[in-house]
This record gives sequence, C-alpha cells and structure tokens, in this order.
Amino acid sequence: MKKRPLILITNDDGIYAPGIETLKNSLSELGEVIVIAPDIQRSAVSSALTIDKPLRVYKVNKNGEFFGFSVNGTPADCVKLAISTLLQRKPDLVVSGINHGKNTSINVLYSGTVAGATEGLIAGINSMAVSHSSHSFDLDLSYAGKITSRIAEKLINNKNENKVLLNVNIPNKPESDIKGIKFTKLSSSKWADKYERRLDPFGNEYFWFAGVYEITSSDPDTDDFAVDGGYVSVTPIRLNMYEENSSFVNNDFLELI
Amino acid sequence: MKKRPLILITNDDGIYAPGIETLKNSLSELGEVIVIAPDIQRSAVSSALTIDKPLRVYKVNKNGEFFGFSVNGTPADCVKLAISTLLQRKPDLVVSGINHGKNTSINVLYSGTVAGATEGLIAGINSMAVSHSSHSFDLDLSYAGKITSRIAEKLINNKNENKVLLNVNIPNKPESDIKGIKFTKLSSSKWADKYERRLDPFGNEYFWFAGVYEITSSDPDTDDFAVDGGYVSVTPIRLNMYEENSSFVNNDFLELI
Repeated sequence: MKKRPLILITNDDGIYAPGIETLKNSLSELGEVIVIAPDIQRSAVSSALTIDKPLRVYKVNKNGEFFGFSVNGTPADCVKLAISTLLQRKPDLVVSGINHGKNTSINVLYSGTVAGATEGLIAGINSMAVSHSSHSFDLDLSYAGKITSRIAEKLINNKNENKVLLNVNIPNKPESDIKGIKFTKLSSSKWADKYERRLDPFGNEYFWFAGVYEITSSDPDTDDFAVDGGYVSVTPIRLNMYEENSSFVNNDFLELI
Repeated sequence: MKKRPLILITNDDGIYAPGIETLKNSLSELGEVIVIAPDIQRSAVSSALTIDKPLRVYKVNKNGEFFGFSVNGTPADCVKLAISTLLQRKPDLVVSGINHGKNTSINVLYSGTVAGATEGLIAGINSMAVSHSSHSFDLDLSYAGKITSRIAEKLINNKNENKVLLNVNIPNKPESDIKGIKFTKLSSSKWADKYERRLDPFGNEYFWFAGVYEITSSDPDTDDFAVDGGYVSVTPIRLNMYEENSSFVNNDFLELI
C-alpha cells in the first residue's frame, strides 16, 4: 500500500504559536504531518544554524494531545535535524508557518519562517513558507489554513525534477474580501534602520532596534503590492545568490596579481 | 579638503579574532577605518537580527591601543547599528572578515561574514566579504590582507550607480603558490547534514551538528574549484532571492480561489 505523503511542519514563532496549530490542522487532510519547531520565538533568525551548543528535542502536547517536537534551535536547525536524523523517511513536503506577520521583499532574507522552508528545498523537497499579514495571535486563521492546504496539495503533486520553494503571503482580510491569488516577484522595499538609544537603571547606554519597514516600490508585480491589495501572493524563491549581471566583473581584476 | 574614504569593518568570528586585525591593518592605507564587530564568535548566524534584546556597544583595545567597538549582536546588527546610528557619515565601503574558513557555495546563505557585507549593499554601499580557506587562528594572513586591500581599492573607486557585493575567498597557500584571481559563480555543493546523538551525564539525549561540506560540483567556473585550485575567488552576490525561472508558475493556480 502506498504510504500517505509525509509533511514536515516548522515555524519561527515557536511551537506554541497559534499559526503552527492552524497549519497542522489544515494539512492533516493531505497526509501524515509531523511538527518539529523551535521551543521559543525565533523571529528574524534568518538561516542561522546552531553549531556552538547541542540541540535538545522534547515532546510537546497541546490540548491534552501530542502535538509535535520542540527543538532549542532555529527553524533551519529543526528542518536539518528532522530530515537527517529524526524522521524515518524523507518528507514529501516541508511547510513553515503560518507566520504571524508578512514576509515580503527583503524580509525573505531575515525571516526564520522562510529559512525553515529553504532547508526543505536544499534537501531536494518541495517547500513553502506561509505568512499572514497580521501579527496578532488572536485571529481567525481558518482561511489562511484553507488556502495553504490547497497550495500544499499542488506542491505534493508537483513531480517536476526541479523542486520549488514558494513564499506565500496572505492578506489580513476576511475570506470574502480576498480578490484572488497571484504569482509575484519580491518587492525592492527595505527597512529604514533605526535604533533607539536608551539608558538602563544604572545609567548605561543600550540600543533597541526600532526600524520601520518602508514600502517604496509600487511595482504591481510584487508581493507587497499583491498582499496589500487583497491577493494571496505566491513568490518562487531561489537558493543561489550569485549575481549573473554584475556590472563589476571586468578584466581590470586580472592585473591585481 | 576631501575626506578620506570611510571603511566600516566587521566580521563573524568576533572582534578578538586575528582575521579582523589583519583586515584593519591592511585597509588603513586606503582610508579611515572603523571596526564595529560582534563581541564573540558568531559563525553561521546568517542574516539574523537581534530584536528580542537591546544591543550594548563597548570600546575594545588591542595591544594597548583602541581597536574598535564590540556589539553583543550579529554581524548584520553591527552594520545596521553602525550605519544608522553610530557613524557620523555614510561609509564608502563595508568589508567583513577576514573569516577563518572559506565561505563558498551554499555557505553564503549561512555565513555571518557574508551577512555583514550584505547589510552594506542593502544600505547602498559597495561591500565585500573576505574568507580564508584555513580555520587556523595561527596563520600568516599577510597575503590575504594584501589582496583584500587591492580589491577594496577597486571597490572604493567603483562609481557605478549599481553597488556591488563581492564574496572573496582566499586559498590556504603561500603567496608564491597563488595562481591568480578569478571571477566565479557559486558552486552547487552542499552540506551532508548529520547530527551526533549523545547522552549527557544524566542520561538525557542531545544532538550535535556534525555535518560535512561535500564538494559535489566540478564546474571549473565555480568558487570552490577556483579556491581549491589556488586562485583567489571573487563572486558577485545578489540580494534578491526571486526565482525568475520557476517551473511552477502556471495558470493552474488561478483556479485555487
């Protein structure tokens, strides 16, 4: 008998966040799901790996039932540890999320949510990162779960040799106001970096990151434009950061040595 | 009078590593250098940002003289904090390194060294990450410093509106054995992930990352091939991780909603 698809789930808000519960529930109809996720909030950890301390794995219950495994590491750690060591077979799909807060444009670089899914693609598995535009933990995510499940099904059925990594962002709107789904590219918008200088109770200086994400691009083909306009945004992500079109590759360099 | 170029230096091995000392010494001939770097070893932190605790900045002396500022954060934190808050003017160049250990192929994704330079490019500044193939802290890095300084000079003089991020890897060979310098692309080689399962003194299980970087690509145009063959490898890096050529973008998706 053919085994049901195995779906590995992780996130960066930590195993106790509501978004990962929605994700597990909504993907359970598609196959066998297993949750291996950070024990605590790990936002903005990017593709960081834990190499200076060992990882611990613990069973976590929710609502009196086994929910998944927590790891004292990053989303990338969770997926690497799961695929290489903890799981009995290779997953058919890796899904990271549902993140509380959207991950568009340059945020793909910083996001732990995306990094978890990136490790799926590195391991040769179709993968997706899913983020919801609201940061609230008290939100009805049922529509987000539903659309995630539909895209996940497409990914499980994707038999193309070239695996894909999709970055999905879901608008913070009721289902009736969702206008559709769009393939997008990453926006060029960035953070306006700012740090607040404060003094601790002993008069010593410290700095809090207080940057603001500024949408400076109005390109209608981009993820921000789609999500903010009420569309579910789906952006294919690549691993290779080689710049093919660098203006700087020239023969001058040959004289250097 | 025209000001000397301002060069911001960071790394991921921490401000006390020898590589960053070589870097500071070798770039001092090109302009005013300022070191703002992590207080401790921060390898494999990728583009992680510290958002859950404040950052502290301390003056660090070496050999009885002021050397630079330490930050209890990642390389990306250091460069963001420096450019947005600590520095009086915008740097003309950001250089991260010299890392003890090469950063080729997929390691660009994990490397804190590269992430430090990436923040330079994000801020619109020509930037470079420099890594040496040896992990040893007891090595003569004078050649590495020399070639870094030459490439840095080219970058300072690059007046192109499109700024560049260069990932430089230097072979672990004496200067007389260096064959030249090559522009390369990133190799497709990856890590064979592995975790060692151990028991602590109380009999509780833990996992150590014990992955091995496996060179599976023999493409002569790649960074690994160049460095291992005795060439200094220079790879232009892009920020945008959008996959233009995804096999998966198709109209089926339009039916989803």
